[in-house]
Amino acid sequence: MFWKGRNLYILLAFVLLAMFASSILTLTIVGPYSLAEPGQSVSGGKTGTGSFTPQELKKLTTTYELIQNQYLHETDRTKVINGAISGMLGSLEDPYTTYMDQKEAQQFNDMLNSTFQGIGAEVSLEEGRVKVVSPIKGSPADKAGIRTNDIILSVNGEKLDGLSLSEAVMKIRGTKGSQAKLQVMRAGAEPIEIVVVRDDIPIETVLSEMIDGQVGKIEIREFVQNTAKNFKDQLKALEDQGMKALVIDVRNDPGGMLQAVVEMLEPFVPKGKPIVQVEDRNGQREQTVSKGSTKPYPIAVLINNGSASASEIMAGALQEAAGAKLVGEKTYGKGTVQVTYQQELGDGSNIKMTVMKWLTPNGNWVHQKGIAPDVAVEQPPYYKASPMSKKTTLKYDMLGDDVKNLQLMLDGLGFPPGRTDGYFGDKTTQAVKSFQSQHGLTANGEVDVKTAQTLEDAITKQIRNPESDLQLKAAVDEMKKAIK
Amino acid sequence: MFWKGRNLYILLAFVLLAMFASSILTLTIVGPYSLAEPGQSVSGGKTGTGSFTPQELKKLTTTYELIQNQYLHETDRTKVINGAISGMLGSLEDPYTTYMDQKEAQQFNDMLNSTFQGIGAEVSLEEGRVKVVSPIKGSPADKAGIRTNDIILSVNGEKLDGLSLSEAVMKIRGTKGSQAKLQVMRAGAEPIEIVVVRDDIPIETVLSEMIDGQVGKIEIREFVQNTAKNFKDQLKALEDQGMKALVIDVRNDPGGMLQAVVEMLEPFVPKGKPIVQVEDRNGQREQTVSKGSTKPYPIAVLINNGSASASEIMAGALQEAAGAKLVGEKTYGKGTVQVTYQQELGDGSNIKMTVMKWLTPNGNWVHQKGIAPDVAVEQPPYYKASPMSKKTTLKYDMLGDDVKNLQLMLDGLGFPPGRTDGYFGDKTTQAVKSFQSQHGLTANGEVDVKTAQTLEDAITKQIRNPESDLQLKAAVDEMKKAIK
Repeated sequence: MFWKGRNLYILLAFVLLAMFASSILTLTIVGPYSLAEPGQSVSGGKTGTGSFTPQELKKLTTTYELIQNQYLHETDRTKVINGAISGMLGSLEDPYTTYMDQKEAQQFNDMLNSTFQGIGAEVSLEEGRVKVVSPIKGSPADKAGIRTNDIILSVNGEKLDGLSLSEAVMKIRGTKGSQAKLQVMRAGAEPIEIVVVRDDIPIETVLSEMIDGQVGKIEIREFVQNTAKNFKDQLKALEDQGMKALVIDVRNDPGGMLQAVVEMLEPFVPKGKPIVQVEDRNGQREQTVSKGSTKPYPIAVLINNGSASASEIMAGALQEAAGAKLVGEKTYGKGTVQVTYQQELGDGSNIKMTVMKWLTPNGNWVHQKGIAPDVAVEQPPYYKASPMSKKTTLKYDMLGDDVKNLQLMLDGLGFPPGRTDGYFGDKTTQAVKSFQSQHGLTANGEVDVKTAQTLEDAITKQIRNPESDLQLKAAVDEMKKAIK
Repeated sequence: MFWKGRNLYILLAFVLLAMFASSILTLTIVGPYSLAEPGQSVSGGKTGTGSFTPQELKKLTTTYELIQNQYLHETDRTKVINGAISGMLGSLEDPYTTYMDQKEAQQFNDMLNSTFQGIGAEVSLEEGRVKVVSPIKGSPADKAGIRTNDIILSVNGEKLDGLSLSEAVMKIRGTKGSQAKLQVMRAGAEPIEIVVVRDDIPIETVLSEMIDGQVGKIEIREFVQNTAKNFKDQLKALEDQGMKALVIDVRNDPGGMLQAVVEMLEPFVPKGKPIVQVEDRNGQREQTVSKGSTKPYPIAVLINNGSASASEIMAGALQEAAGAKLVGEKTYGKGTVQVTYQQELGDGSNIKMTVMKWLTPNGNWVHQKGIAPDVAVEQPPYYKASPMSKKTTLKYDMLGDDVKNLQLMLDGLGFPPGRTDGYFGDKTTQAVKSFQSQHGLTANGEVDVKTAQTLEDAITKQIRNPESDLQLKAAVDEMKKAIK
């Protein structure tokens, strides 16, 4: 199917974001790196004086002893120490400088390795139940016979009822080799038990396709391990098919590793030009100069407010050094580089710390500003509709957020509701009736759970329709003009 | 004026809460205390093992050194150390265990001493401007000639424009002896300059009055230094006037010092009965037994969701050990005792730490449960109305929170708006027109800034009307029944 990429993406992104909310928005340097060895250029200039003074240490010790000896409840020493570390880092007021305990550090590393341990099924939450959207091909879930639309009721005896999607996902996941006994309901039959042995599940971060036989499109979801290699492979495949223009989609891409994006940009930036610059705490700048060449075809980059960090390095560099057109909405605006210090802590936990700024090839710092598109295009309003709560039947003369979402959906589906401010008036009743008639529902103009569900299914289908993606359409149009 | 107490209270409470949000909700033991010497009974049982292990210290030191040597920006060492302390205390997940830096510690001590340093004027924010509600009698503001309804434009050259009320109050306040040069606008004339020399301003925490010549009412705003003495003096005055029943009002009273409430309860609890019990970290209980007697008159206590800590000790003890009726709404539910450790830190900062539970005379722990009233009474809905944003003229067919607040106010003023869900329908238009006619405004049914302001003034006047306080009325009715 042409558009499955985007659909999968939405769900995957939701799950990933729920898991890594604090750490995924990053631009991490892993291992030794040519731009700036943290041990050298960063601490080479004026540095702090290091360790605690006796007074500082006394204050910390006093606090710790009061907690141990006076506090009403017994305490977990590790939690208190981790609190001290998080507190020190938190005092810097930089959202990208964070402490990760052992478990969070493992998840962060999994993310950078573009893998996680689990059963390998994309799931969504529908009416409070965990539903399989699709098992990933070749995954343990796939092999064990889990199918699309299966409802997962429990995992190893623990019911998933009432959990949020990310809580449920945390129950389903687990370490490689462990068993997940799933109670599964399928198409009205009695629940069955399926045992799945968990394994490493690779995460696809690059997806490509050819549009109208001439415009290649590459979607990048994160910049992690293997992203650069997959990108170069898929780019070559598109070029081999005779691609005449390229659209790179980094919408909702929160970033990842600095090495990855630099490697991906090299073939697009003329030899001798900077791909990116970094500036350390002493104001010293260093350029990463391209050894690559240029591409003969026009390029567009799709951006939005969720394009951060490495995505912005890509958009900025392609715009400034490769003449690419940016299409969509302004980017997030994250202009700093983090380094992780896992070895230094020595117990599997990790500190991720902001150590440098990055600048575009021309030396612009986009932090808290973002990069504006050359061609500004917004998605249709119904992209922002949320599912209705379905707590009550919506009808004439009601008001609120549920009604507002209802109206956005009706409008998007071509049933004008008269207004979209959240008041259920006559025209909204008419629009609901028309929708109900067209979908074989009793045309009473009232939105009960069934009508609400049918509406949400219809709008989801609509969003998956490539025709709805106005930003992509604009980018492809730009490229077709450029080809002529 | 009969009701000025409540009015003053609302504004004062707002200012205080804005300043001490994290610390005012407390039940502090100050100095040596008979119930439980922190140095003895609290740490007498199983205690923690005290100081940092070498591994713990290494992890802390590593983090501190990374911040000093690697972090992008230069940092403030004190801020980082304070962050570590706040982080350790925060890991306990107890909202009442907090670190206060020097300035916050000073404010906390001022609060317990029922004094602050400033000019001594109650102010409110009206249409974005700081307006004097009333100068406190004998205060520097009063002596310098500040009057009710004066608009304060600037302090020592700094404009107050665009600040929140608490931000503005922080600018007006300052240490004893310092000068505040105020630019003041008065009744349309040109701004004048008034210089006020700041001083200690005492905060009244006890207010009393006689209702209908027989029911004494004592309102307690906080339990701090001098509260017990003032309470006993005013109680005696009411008794000397022949009071036949007593209403104690602890609504929106966030607590204060344990000593104060125990001292105030002594005359009400029969000799030999416990006033309150405490339980330390080892589960050991201690009772504070009354040496007092009882009172010959019936008692009611007014409570609501803002009655916390010492207020709950008072309500619980009077209910269980003195037969008092509780009237109003369920209390907050804070059942722990804090001790402050300022000397231990040695630099003027302070740690406030939860060290005990407190229990009612009968041994009930009300923490996170609250105390239910014997006579449940809610205030009228318009007590919960918020000021309108006044960003746009509200009219027929609009919807939202502003309309909802408008409807609550119209309803409270006796102009039924048809609905109070936030949709501006025909009946709301009619109600607005009626209100406008009665107040000499153009009766067009649209709520512009002028109509909005007139409405808010009317509802404020209504709230100050003793007839509106349904909870007080119910308590007084109960007492009159009990007298007969």
